[in-house]
Amino acid sequence: MSSPHSLELTSWIEVPAHSDFPIQNLPFGMARIGLATVAVSAIGDKIINLDALQELGYLTGIDLPEGIFEGENLNPFISLGQPVWRAVRQRLSDLLRADSKGLLKSTVVDHAVVLRDPEEVQMIMPVKVGDYTDFYSSEEHATNVGTMFRGKENALMPNWKHLPVGYHGRASSIVVSDTPIKRPKGQRKNADGEIEFGPSRLMDFELEMAFVIGKSTKLGDAVSTTEAEDHIFGMSLFNDWSARDIQAWEYVPLGPFLGKNFGSTVSPWIITLDALEPFRVAGKEQNPPVLPYLQTEGDRNFDIHLEVDIQPENGEPFTVCKSNHKHLYWSIAQQLAHHTVNGCDIQVGDMMASGTISGPEKGSYGSMLEITWRGANPVQMPDGSERKFINDGDTVILRGWCEKNGVRIGFGEARGKIVG
Amino acid sequence: MSSPHSLELTSWIEVPAHSDFPIQNLPFGMARIGLATVAVSAIGDKIINLDALQELGYLTGIDLPEGIFEGENLNPFISLGQPVWRAVRQRLSDLLRADSKGLLKSTVVDHAVVLRDPEEVQMIMPVKVGDYTDFYSSEEHATNVGTMFRGKENALMPNWKHLPVGYHGRASSIVVSDTPIKRPKGQRKNADGEIEFGPSRLMDFELEMAFVIGKSTKLGDAVSTTEAEDHIFGMSLFNDWSARDIQAWEYVPLGPFLGKNFGSTVSPWIITLDALEPFRVAGKEQNPPVLPYLQTEGDRNFDIHLEVDIQPENGEPFTVCKSNHKHLYWSIAQQLAHHTVNGCDIQVGDMMASGTISGPEKGSYGSMLEITWRGANPVQMPDGSERKFINDGDTVILRGWCEKNGVRIGFGEARGKIVG
Repeated sequence: MSSPHSLELTSWIEVPAHSDFPIQNLPFGMARIGLATVAVSAIGDKIINLDALQELGYLTGIDLPEGIFEGENLNPFISLGQPVWRAVRQRLSDLLRADSKGLLKSTVVDHAVVLRDPEEVQMIMPVKVGDYTDFYSSEEHATNVGTMFRGKENALMPNWKHLPVGYHGRASSIVVSDTPIKRPKGQRKNADGEIEFGPSRLMDFELEMAFVIGKSTKLGDAVSTTEAEDHIFGMSLFNDWSARDIQAWEYVPLGPFLGKNFGSTVSPWIITLDALEPFRVAGKEQNPPVLPYLQTEGDRNFDIHLEVDIQPENGEPFTVCKSNHKHLYWSIAQQLAHHTVNGCDIQVGDMMASGTISGPEKGSYGSMLEITWRGANPVQMPDGSERKFINDGDTVILRGWCEKNGVRIGFGEARGKIVG
Repeated sequence: MSSPHSLELTSWIEVPAHSDFPIQNLPFGMARIGLATVAVSAIGDKIINLDALQELGYLTGIDLPEGIFEGENLNPFISLGQPVWRAVRQRLSDLLRADSKGLLKSTVVDHAVVLRDPEEVQMIMPVKVGDYTDFYSSEEHATNVGTMFRGKENALMPNWKHLPVGYHGRASSIVVSDTPIKRPKGQRKNADGEIEFGPSRLMDFELEMAFVIGKSTKLGDAVSTTEAEDHIFGMSLFNDWSARDIQAWEYVPLGPFLGKNFGSTVSPWIITLDALEPFRVAGKEQNPPVLPYLQTEGDRNFDIHLEVDIQPENGEPFTVCKSNHKHLYWSIAQQLAHHTVNGCDIQVGDMMASGTISGPEKGSYGSMLEITWRGANPVQMPDGSERKFINDGDTVILRGWCEKNGVRIGFGEARGKIVG
């Protein structure tokens, strides 16, 4: 029995080159297939119906309640615990590998039931998000924004290198990829200092990744950095849409509110930390040294390539950002340990996002605010138009993937179109 | 059929003087009674088992699904809509009024099933809170805090009188009255500017009230000030515990996080807006005038007396604050209209709290931070001890009530004990 994330594995199902979903990935999501709403995985261009797989007996021997994959979200499955998620991915791998001894390979009559084409499937929100937290963990992003608003000398606040700054966001308005986002209305202060009301003029995206809580805690309990990853089910792409004019006027002193809570877009697939195992890298040196409760051992960052495209209405996508998850100063283990050190409880399905992931170079900035430096340097689009921020009709597309030895573990896409 | 909140009504059930729960109140809550978890109301010293009432046929004719009052929280009942909540309160009123023609009064054998003593009942969280928002709507509180941290000249931020400042809090750590709260650990900056870690030294309460959403919206929709109250099920007492040392170090620039999210205490009863109808009062004059989307007509504030006691371990409660909900600058209708003007969706069960409700005089300040002016003027307790902030073993008790013509509509208590 090989580890399901071994880079050597191949499948009897054809996996196109550059597919996000080789046999090593086996992510989890939720989909509508016909009249049913079921948990799914993916391999190559096929969506795997986990509910059908269980009904047909391919998951026997794993401690799974009947019908666990049928329902509104993955929360009941995730609540079964890490050993069960691992057993399901191991079984999927065993059933799908080229030299599989399992019956699925040879029982061709089952293929049409279990392996569906994307056109037959509508992906939906994978989890019910109880609480959503957004961190601010990219030093480059915090420095860029701080420089713009407070000058170079005071770019990073004094607390920034001592703790992973974070704040609570709105859980109800997190939507799955391909859900249109209405341009929000709100208050802003204009250049003459007058208070105005109207549709945001400074619509922005934020390139982020989110992790999903896989193991709850009780109020009063803390999770150490060592235990943190055992509480994480997996990761997704996350676009924390931001209306910069609304945000700028409202956010002092209690933080962002209406400038953010009109919508966030998450990709439909949750990639397990197990699938990301081969792509661990060391984090940055943290200086000043962090307090003991934030110290970690081993490689806690992940080498995940990230890209953002803007696709105008009836136009072609144009890449405006290439970044990487490894640029984060604070790891997900540190974020979670910090979040719970005061006894704050966490629940299965909670999402915690990274904050905008900007890299050191200009081409790696993760928001239009930084890319155009508050509009001073507009992006020249291939169709001759330019963008300071996001226009109505524009679709913003986030993509992410890890790659090694020709194996690409992809996150799919988080797409959202701004409508007026 | 009299209105259930008519101040003339009396009940055939004895209601002690100064009871929070005369026949005009009829609040909603959730309780464990024996092995069941059911929706309840209250009259005098009796808890009304709504599930039993329905099973015994006293609610026939109202459009209620079977078993709607049995479950984990009030959310399914609230989701039935305002006409149904109103019909249930009207029926309770008709059954319980002194001149009732309903059968409950005369069917003595049913009394023991329907009307329970508080000792037989454990009150639990009344709703599942999807998202929790905290506003900052008391001018006196915002001015006091602003004066302490930025000086008198810059006490109120420029945005404060233009919009009801708010931020997202943690929903998972909202607990019902009588749940102990563990003193949180966290980072703080000491007087020498060093970063330390340990249990908070500046534990505080915040006297707030919360309203509960009774009608959901879709993402993209806004709720006007005129419609706002139709989306509100009712109100409760709310203690937004705050660790001032953790908060001070972490909160710039994205707002409070670990200084707040270790716990909030809510009272078990939700008092409907209908029951509060006789206690409406005009809000303060708002100057500068607010934008059209925040303008309201009629009396949108409520005359609700509020008190806070501190009860030391093995000691007597001592009142440290007497305030009133009517002091709020921003009404609940304005808060909700602002929250949704950008299209942010709301869900049944969401809680939105007022922010600390301080009045104009010293005795009416709603937090220890203000009462002791950051510890400069400690509270002298009757047992000879003093309090700058909250000690381990102290229980903080919030109470609230409206009163008119000898009728008192009370909120019960929100109690929480700090444990080390």
